[in-house]
Amino acid sequence: MTTFIGLGDMGSTLARTSLAAGHRVTVWNRSHSKTTALVDHGADLAASLADAIEASEVLIVCLFDHRSVHDVLDPVVDRLAGRQVINLTTTSPDGARELAHWAARHGADYLDGGIMAIPSMIGTAASKVLYSGSQQIFDQNRPLLETWGCAEHFGTDAGMASLYDLALLAGMYVMFAGFFHGAAMVGAAGVPAKEFAVRAADWLRAMAPAVIEYADVIDGGDYAIPGQQSLEFSDVSDIVAASRAHGVSTELVDVVQRLIHRQIDAGHGAHGFARVIESLRGAAA
Amino acid sequence: MTTFIGLGDMGSTLARTSLAAGHRVTVWNRSHSKTTALVDHGADLAASLADAIEASEVLIVCLFDHRSVHDVLDPVVDRLAGRQVINLTTTSPDGARELAHWAARHGADYLDGGIMAIPSMIGTAASKVLYSGSQQIFDQNRPLLETWGCAEHFGTDAGMASLYDLALLAGMYVMFAGFFHGAAMVGAAGVPAKEFAVRAADWLRAMAPAVIEYADVIDGGDYAIPGQQSLEFSDVSDIVAASRAHGVSTELVDVVQRLIHRQIDAGHGAHGFARVIESLRGAAA
Ligand SMILES: NC(=O)c1ccc[n+]([C@@H]2O[C@H](COP(=O)([O-])OP(=O)(O)OC[C@H]3O[C@@H](n4cnc5c(N)ncnc54)[C@H](OP(=O)(O)O)[C@@H]3O)[C@@H](O)[C@H]2O)c1
Ligand SMILES: NC(=O)c1ccc[n+]([C@@H]2O[C@H](COP(=O)([O-])OP(=O)(O)OC[C@H]3O[C@@H](n4cnc5c(N)ncnc54)[C@H](OP(=O)(O)O)[C@@H]3O)[C@@H](O)[C@H]2O)c1
Repeated sequence: MTTFIGLGDMGSTLARTSLAAGHRVTVWNRSHSKTTALVDHGADLAASLADAIEASEVLIVCLFDHRSVHDVLDPVVDRLAGRQVINLTTTSPDGARELAHWAARHGADYLDGGIMAIPSMIGTAASKVLYSGSQQIFDQNRPLLETWGCAEHFGTDAGMASLYDLALLAGMYVMFAGFFHGAAMVGAAGVPAKEFAVRAADWLRAMAPAVIEYADVIDGGDYAIPGQQSLEFSDVSDIVAASRAHGVSTELVDVVQRLIHRQIDAGHGAHGFARVIESLRGAAA
Repeated sequence: MTTFIGLGDMGSTLARTSLAAGHRVTVWNRSHSKTTALVDHGADLAASLADAIEASEVLIVCLFDHRSVHDVLDPVVDRLAGRQVINLTTTSPDGARELAHWAARHGADYLDGGIMAIPSMIGTAASKVLYSGSQQIFDQNRPLLETWGCAEHFGTDAGMASLYDLALLAGMYVMFAGFFHGAAMVGAAGVPAKEFAVRAADWLRAMAPAVIEYADVIDGGDYAIPGQQSLEFSDVSDIVAASRAHGVSTELVDVVQRLIHRQIDAGHGAHGFARVIESLRGAAA
């Protein structure tokens, strides 16, 4: 038996996918209405949160944020001893570490998960969930975890899955912002967003693998190796100027330009574009 | 016969690809040394720029930037009458429009091209070149243009190919910056960039097609339609905080957060994430 706590868009999808894969499932949600569909699909309804925790050794927690995990579980924390808590709520790395310590203090084992998928992807090959924290929970529950998608364990530091998750999400949100910027540029000249998006999707997909080459340069530690696009060549003045000329805010591309020029100004203009990472690293915490 | 003016990394690749496809080619470059390899591959060497222009009706110009096009061609501008100028030098949309007028004043027809490829991709299916300006040049030279990759004409406004090109490049540079940000985050916890990059490449490729759904919402003009991820849900505070906690500069993700919150602050927090484009549009030029 596995208990699912939190049946929002994501939690209910996780529960339904596990049910469909043949797992026995108990559900609880603050708002009762969201339990109905799952009970119709064969889930057991817990009469209270305490009953939900009583029902299973394994608790899948999928709430809104870090705070809501404490809001929900603090009142019943004494019941967590001996339980395996798998928390799929998005939290910060430090939030995950805090929850791991909190769980340990109350005799529970803790695995943190970062879901790299939207609900419609759960259970398909495109879905990935990153885990860190208890190796034992991960190993013992692999069949369950793999009903949701590809499962990978990133070490016993409970914060690592979240850090990885947030790093990938950062890349995604920034990429989407870049798309909106481009769509605004051509949109100013009357091009529908869809017309641009079809091409941008192809283009971004074609360009994404280049990050692997940048990574080789970064890990190699020598930004001067031949065959790279130089920082000077990467200057985005043309993009900034064309954005301004078409009434598009330059704040996003200005940052990229600034990251590039911080390296050029430090005398590295002939080095490869991958050196931009040095403009981001080592900021005062 | 086709004349290639400018034999840098890109110009020499274009010329070599056309030669390999059976086109007769004349070449000119400021630095003589770069002509040698092409002459070895069967290109005719022009003794002077004037001779290079004399040799062909079609001139392929691939220089460093807009200014270098004038630097090279202004001294011989009287020889351009009756010629078809295909300029593949990256320029701004207004720069392309200026060159189209300049060419017209001197009796030449003008087609502007934006190359969405790096030299190693030229001639492969992954290479795209966007054109705008003279429809006649485009139609008459399609076999030549298609030796380099997929060729598409974006209308007679000579600036449109460049605008499209820069909009796609903006998306790419911003995406790469987002990758560097993510790599810096996990790098601060000791993860090699390559380990992150392999996953980031997959993740960005998987997420890129979502821009097509955003575009449908943007073109539809109703950011409130159901089924979207809301702006409030898209808040990137966790990413900002984790970046700061790991000593990564937040300047890039701060901009994304600001673009999101400009819409939330205007009362649209329940609207879809696609509304971020409104934070970029309509800036004072
Ligand atoms: N949806 C996605 O695409 C996606 C993707 C990756 C990760 N995630 C993560 O998955 C988690 C859940 O996302 P979701 O899409 O399912 O969100 P959601 O639809 O908004 O559901 C939120 C859930 O949390 C509950 N909740 C929130 N605050 C609570 C509180 N103080 N006390 C008790 N229950 C509370 C809600 O209960 P009520 O029903 O009573 O409101 C609901 O069950 C989030 O951390 C999210 O970041 C989601
Ligand atoms: N390489 C790419 O990945 C790529 C991708 C897309 C678009 N493009 C565009 O293609 C164009 C050429 O790029 P590239 O990679 O070939 O650049 P490159 O290797 O730096 O070559 C620049 C060329 O321009 C010439 N040049 C520059 N200033 C000049 C001047 N004032 N007078 C005469 N000649 C001058 C150079 O002549 P010398 O040999 O005498 O220096 C050389 O032939 C650029 O606009 C670039 O944005 C390139």
